[in-house]
Amino acid sequence: MFAQIDHIGVAVEDLDAAIALHEQAYGLSLEHREVVDDQGVEAVLLEVGDGHVELLAPLAPDTAVGRFLASRGPGLHHVAYRVTDIQATLATLRERGLQLIDETPRVGIRDTRVAFLHPQSTGGVLTEIVQSAEGH
Amino acid sequence: MFAQIDHIGVAVEDLDAAIALHEQAYGLSLEHREVVDDQGVEAVLLEVGDGHVELLAPLAPDTAVGRFLASRGPGLHHVAYRVTDIQATLATLRERGLQLIDETPRVGIRDTRVAFLHPQSTGGVLTEIVQSAEGH
Repeated sequence: MFAQIDHIGVAVEDLDAAIALHEQAYGLSLEHREVVDDQGVEAVLLEVGDGHVELLAPLAPDTAVGRFLASRGPGLHHVAYRVTDIQATLATLRERGLQLIDETPRVGIRDTRVAFLHPQSTGGVLTEIVQSAEGH
Repeated sequence: MFAQIDHIGVAVEDLDAAIALHEQAYGLSLEHREVVDDQGVEAVLLEVGDGHVELLAPLAPDTAVGRFLASRGPGLHHVAYRVTDIQATLATLRERGLQLIDETPRVGIRDTRVAFLHPQSTGGVLTEIVQSAEGH
């Protein structure tokens, strides 16, 4: 059902420093940069194999990532799994007792369709499922 | 330099419950189970595409993962990137100013060679590099 690890999401306080770490120290390529108003973040995707690292800098303290940074500091924020049919996957996960943050998919970075599962039903791991936009 | 996301490591309190979640709800296949005394964990690998989810249950409270659970609760513990030459990668990372937990590679799960980078120099993300054993 989950095809692969699409990306890991990392909460960062200093986006430029985090980009420098991933580009210059780790040798990854910056692929995309986007302000996602809906999620209150500026997000940067770096390519690693067939997956990505997604750096997330909050647009304001009163956002999900801003609150995460205030309580836990910078670090791993979520994991995202790639699926081919997000509607069907959400229905299956609901049937299997998972608690959904998003009952229906919403638009994510690069016109993906995404939905989050609640960490209370995923062993404390904020978990996202992602269906690529056509052509990605 | 980093070829792909090899796995995410997840700290768990209840290994059987975490296996059930990943197998039955997410549809992943359990691929390997091993007590890694050196790291104080019982570890389980589940296959997802070309990568893995690694569940980590502490063998005792006074272990790295036991202390992680006590302070942060269950959830994302580390990310591991696959590399082809771990010795050369460690030397390059040291040159680039990264703080290494392991100055030389040690044996990880399934006879991989692994080394951890200190979260203080990686934006709060406990980061592992992994070189596969021959044949994996």
